[in-house]
Amino acid sequence: MTDPVLSALGDLDVAHKLADTARAVILPYFRRADLTADNKVIGGFDPVTEADRAAEQAMRTVLAELRPEDGILGEEFGSEAGRSGRTWVLDPIDGTRGFLSGTPTWGVLIALSEASGPVLGIIDQPYTGERFVGGPAGAEMTGPQGRRTLSTRPTARLEEAILFTTFPEVGTTDERRGFETVARQVKLTRYGMDCYAYALLAAGHIDLVIEAGLNPYDVQGPIAVIEAAGGVVTDWQGGRADQGGRLLAAANPELHAQALEILRRI
Amino acid sequence: MTDPVLSALGDLDVAHKLADTARAVILPYFRRADLTADNKVIGGFDPVTEADRAAEQAMRTVLAELRPEDGILGEEFGSEAGRSGRTWVLDPIDGTRGFLSGTPTWGVLIALSEASGPVLGIIDQPYTGERFVGGPAGAEMTGPQGRRTLSTRPTARLEEAILFTTFPEVGTTDERRGFETVARQVKLTRYGMDCYAYALLAAGHIDLVIEAGLNPYDVQGPIAVIEAAGGVVTDWQGGRADQGGRLLAAANPELHAQALEILRRI
Repeated sequence: MTDPVLSALGDLDVAHKLADTARAVILPYFRRADLTADNKVIGGFDPVTEADRAAEQAMRTVLAELRPEDGILGEEFGSEAGRSGRTWVLDPIDGTRGFLSGTPTWGVLIALSEASGPVLGIIDQPYTGERFVGGPAGAEMTGPQGRRTLSTRPTARLEEAILFTTFPEVGTTDERRGFETVARQVKLTRYGMDCYAYALLAAGHIDLVIEAGLNPYDVQGPIAVIEAAGGVVTDWQGGRADQGGRLLAAANPELHAQALEILRRI
Repeated sequence: MTDPVLSALGDLDVAHKLADTARAVILPYFRRADLTADNKVIGGFDPVTEADRAAEQAMRTVLAELRPEDGILGEEFGSEAGRSGRTWVLDPIDGTRGFLSGTPTWGVLIALSEASGPVLGIIDQPYTGERFVGGPAGAEMTGPQGRRTLSTRPTARLEEAILFTTFPEVGTTDERRGFETVARQVKLTRYGMDCYAYALLAAGHIDLVIEAGLNPYDVQGPIAVIEAAGGVVTDWQGGRADQGGRLLAAANPELHAQALEILRRI
């Protein structure tokens, strides 16, 4: 039976409860000496851990209780149709390579999506205790330095911009060329931050993230956080990015337009 | 006048006091919206912040009080000769690009060096509250998950190894080729972690770090931590790495030998 108190929780409360649940499940696995990884992709290295699966299962249990009408799309256990037109999109550990390497740059990604796209999102980093949230009420983070509002930067020109990506690890040759053309024009390019780069963009520390080869659950949480903080996220043609693929996230519309002009030629 | 109680502090206590001092000075600057950077290298991007200078000055003040006989080598204010044959080697913010981008992968690097090389070292990450220490008494870390002994991994073959580097940003064409030859043989290569990669190696999460173009203050703290945790650090010819330049850090002697065989051909 559904608990009437629990089912009265707002969407933001539910999102936080999902993040709390995933954090508690995952954290004991992080930096465990005996951590093992399966190989999901034959011949490649796409590890998925026990923590990944346990956390998604735990979040699905929460949703079954609190949002039984909503659909679920998760990295580990796929899609479950709902009756409400709303879908919770879950990536329990985005950045499994970073997770396995001990870097605090992976995250739990949670989004609530409607037909228009993601309307609420969380990027949670359990080890540092940082949580980046964006939705109709705005965007904020909590972490070691307390709580603060998230707001993207006003950087107006590529020449002044800091660009992040997971490249050179991800993407086709063409995609890499597109990225490199933008990279040649910016002030600074940095690599390897996993989903943490989206959080840094929303928090106003960096200006651009360019990625490719993404899945819906990789991007929907970050899109909601970045948009609520004032940023712009599209694919490389300027269209919606919430189904994954190629992504361009920028701190503001001016900077987005300059990077898009380069990427749309790819 | 020198305080007799303070001057009775052991070297490890002094090192912790230096790290505590730097942490307190630097942390208020991290992720400040109005952070500005000077350009130390004309035409390049080598930012150094007010925090960098203030922290080194504060550490020098501590050493003037507690270790007036020892020499100092610091990134910001250069070399100061001592009379003891011992030198404190300080890099207040290693990874200034990471610092400016908001990533928690920069660190305060502290070493105490004798003629034989660094004998005591600290890698401190003020934002995450992690401190990695290595010296005659062993190696340990403190952080969000408490205190634990540092011990490198037994990974015996390149094919099983996780490799980190700041490449593709640093190094000459030849150096990059050396790195890439090793990278083709390992299981996983990751980028952009600044000095945090050395801490991950000492803590047993990754297996190899390969860098080039380093300064003494970039490497001496990490060398002491990694060696105390069971790892091996040399230059690309198998010689001492404490003066910087090209560096190969490995989790154990077997793995070190395999990577060295490739790099020494460069």
